[in-house]
Amino acid sequence: MQDTDPIPASRIACLDSHLTDWLRLEGARGVGLRTAHQLLEAFGSPRAIFEAGHAALAAQVGPALARTLCAPPERTICALIDTTLAWLQAPSHHVLALGDAAYPQALANIPDPPLLLYIKGRVDLLARPALAIVGSRNATVQGKANAAAFATALSETGVCVVSGLALGIDAAAHEGALRGAGSTIAVVGTGADLSYPARNRALAARIADEGCIVSEYALGTPPTSGNFPRRNRIISGLSSGVLVIEAAAQSGSLITARVAAEQGREVFALPGSIHAPLAKGCHRLIRDGARLVETVSEVLEAMQVSPLTMSSSPNKAGTNGLPTETDCTDLLAQLGHEPLDVDDLLDRLDTDIGQLSMGLLALEMAGMIERLPGGKVQRVHL
Amino acid sequence: MQDTDPIPASRIACLDSHLTDWLRLEGARGVGLRTAHQLLEAFGSPRAIFEAGHAALAAQVGPALARTLCAPPERTICALIDTTLAWLQAPSHHVLALGDAAYPQALANIPDPPLLLYIKGRVDLLARPALAIVGSRNATVQGKANAAAFATALSETGVCVVSGLALGIDAAAHEGALRGAGSTIAVVGTGADLSYPARNRALAARIADEGCIVSEYALGTPPTSGNFPRRNRIISGLSSGVLVIEAAAQSGSLITARVAAEQGREVFALPGSIHAPLAKGCHRLIRDGARLVETVSEVLEAMQVSPLTMSSSPNKAGTNGLPTETDCTDLLAQLGHEPLDVDDLLDRLDTDIGQLSMGLLALEMAGMIERLPGGKVQRVHL
Repeated sequence: MQDTDPIPASRIACLDSHLTDWLRLEGARGVGLRTAHQLLEAFGSPRAIFEAGHAALAAQVGPALARTLCAPPERTICALIDTTLAWLQAPSHHVLALGDAAYPQALANIPDPPLLLYIKGRVDLLARPALAIVGSRNATVQGKANAAAFATALSETGVCVVSGLALGIDAAAHEGALRGAGSTIAVVGTGADLSYPARNRALAARIADEGCIVSEYALGTPPTSGNFPRRNRIISGLSSGVLVIEAAAQSGSLITARVAAEQGREVFALPGSIHAPLAKGCHRLIRDGARLVETVSEVLEAMQVSPLTMSSSPNKAGTNGLPTETDCTDLLAQLGHEPLDVDDLLDRLDTDIGQLSMGLLALEMAGMIERLPGGKVQRVHL
Repeated sequence: MQDTDPIPASRIACLDSHLTDWLRLEGARGVGLRTAHQLLEAFGSPRAIFEAGHAALAAQVGPALARTLCAPPERTICALIDTTLAWLQAPSHHVLALGDAAYPQALANIPDPPLLLYIKGRVDLLARPALAIVGSRNATVQGKANAAAFATALSETGVCVVSGLALGIDAAAHEGALRGAGSTIAVVGTGADLSYPARNRALAARIADEGCIVSEYALGTPPTSGNFPRRNRIISGLSSGVLVIEAAAQSGSLITARVAAEQGREVFALPGSIHAPLAKGCHRLIRDGARLVETVSEVLEAMQVSPLTMSSSPNKAGTNGLPTETDCTDLLAQLGHEPLDVDDLLDRLDTDIGQLSMGLLALEMAGMIERLPGGKVQRVHL
C-alpha cells in the first residue's frame, strides 16, 4: 500500500474533531501555508473547507487542489493524526490552532502565522510579555555571558525570553532565562517530539519541564535547513522585540532581525569592538536602524515597560500577567517608608515572586524605590 | 605706569596695518567675540570700526564700549602687537584674519568663527579636506591604536586629520596622520607660541614642522580650562566631520560632537564592548544619531568621497586638492591592465603621492582596481 493511498473509510471517524480538521488541512498535499490561509480566509475554518464542496473550492484554488481536498485524507495524514493524538496524552503536551483563545495574539497578527503550534511545557508562558534573544551559534564566551545576563535580568522582571534552541547565544539565553520567573520559550525547527541539536538535549528537556517548547512542524519532522529560517518568524512573532547579541556580517540572526522589523517588532543590538567579527552583524543592524543597547533597562524602556502600567505589546494588554496600576499602588502602600525584606513584602501581598519582581523593577526604574544591601527595598521620598 | 594706561602717541604708528587693527579689536577691553562679530557686521572691518566715531559705535554697543574703542589702544595691546609682529618673523608663522583668502571657508561659516588664526607650520593644510579625530585623554591601548590606524588611513587618502593635541586619542591621531600625505592640524587652547601639555611637546614640535598648529588665542595665552571647550568648535569647524574613537559617558568629546552636529558636520563614532567604560560615550552618540563606523571606507563614503568626483565638504569644492574626474580617467588610462608599481605610476602622472593615493583609494573603493602584494596595483576587468 502506497503512502498516498486513501485511508479506509473505517478510519475516517478519527478525523471527526477540531484538531483533526486542522491536521488534515495542514497535511493536504499541495496545500502550503499561503494556500491554507487563503482557504481559511474564504471559508472560515478547516471544517468549513472540507465541507465546501468541489465547485466552491475549485473557485478558490483550482480544480486539482479542490479534488485533493474533497478526497478522503491520505494514509500519511491519518497516521499523523494518530501520532498526534497519542502525543497529546501527556499532560504537558498541547496543540493550539490559529484562532484558539490560547493561541498568542501577537503571533496571530503576523502576515503568515502558523496554523498549529505544538507545545511541550507551560502553555501559560505564551501569554507573557516576551522578548527574543538571538545570535551566533559560534558565539564568544563573552557573547554567551552577555546573552545569559540579559536573559536572566529580563526573566527576573517577568519577561519571557524567546529563542531558537541553537548552540551559542540561543542556548545561553535559554539557560539565563530559566533562572528568572519569566522563564523561556524555545521555538524549534523540528517536530516538537524531536530534540535538535543533540548537544542541547539536556537543555531542551529542562525547557520542556520548566519553560515551553514550541514548534509549527508536524510531529516527527526532521531538522532540514529550510525549516530554520521559517522558524525565525515565530521567534520574533511571539516577541515584542528581538535582541541580537552577536552575529556575523552575513548570518541568520540578521534575517531574524529583518523579519522582526517587517513584523513591526523593535530590533535591539549589542555593539562590540570594531575588531570583533561577531560584532559586525550587530553593527550592520544598528546602522540599519536597530536600537543600540548596553543594558536591560534600555530594552525594557523601549518595550514601553513603564512604571505603573507595564505592558509590552498592545496585543497582550490586559492578559499579559504584568502588574497593573492597582498592583503597584498596593505594592507602594505595603512598602511603607522603612527598609523591607522582599520576602516579607511577598508575604504581605497577594502575588507571586515574578509579579513582585516586575513591580519592584518598575518602581525602581521610576525612581520610586531604592534597593538596599541584603535584599531589602525602601520607598524613595520624592 | 599701569597696564591700562594709553600708550604714547609715538607708538600708535605700529597700529597702522591690517593685522594691528584686528589685534586691537580682539584685545579691546570689554569686547568679546560676539560683540566683535556684531561690530564687524555693522562696519565691515576693524579699520572701519576704529574710524567710525563715538556716536556710530555707541549706537551699536553703548557709550561705554564706544569710549573704549575710540581711545588709543591700551599698553598691553601695543605690547601684544609687538610680540606678534616679532613672532611673525619666522617664515612658518602666520596670522590669518577672518575674511583673508587663506582663512578656511568652512571655519568662516560657523556661527562664531575666530577673528584671528595663529598658525605655526603648513598653512596650505587648511585648504585640504579635513576630518577631526577626537576622544578620551585616558584612552586604552586599543583606542589609541584605532585612532592612529584611522588617522594614517585617512591621511594616506589625502585627508588632513584635525585634533586637539591632548594626550590619548588626540596624540595618537596626530601621530598616525603624520605618516600620510594628508598630514595633521593641531588646534590648541593656548597661544600658538606655547606648548601644552608638556608631555606632547615633542609631538607639537613635529606637527609645527610637518603639519600645522592652529590657535585663536593671542600669543602667550596660558592653558585655562575655559579655552579648551571653545577650542573644540574650531576642531569641528575646520573639518567635514568628527570621528569619536573612545569617550566616557560624560566627556568633552561628546561636547565636541554636539557642537559639530550643530555646525552641520557629520559625527562618526566607533562602537565598543558594552563592558568598556570608554565605549559608553560613543554609544551615546550613536543612539543620538552619530554614524556608527567600523572602517575608514565608511567615513570616506559618508564624507561623499565618491570614486570619480571626490569632494569632502561643499565649502571646499573646487579648491580641495582632491582628484577630479579627469584625474581618475588619466589614472585608469596610465594603469593599463598589468600590475604596476605605484612609484612607476607616479612617474607617469603629473601629480603628487597624496593625490595619487586618493585617486587609487577611490578606484579601489569603486572596485575598479585591486592592490597586489609588493605595492603594485592593477586595473580590475569588469
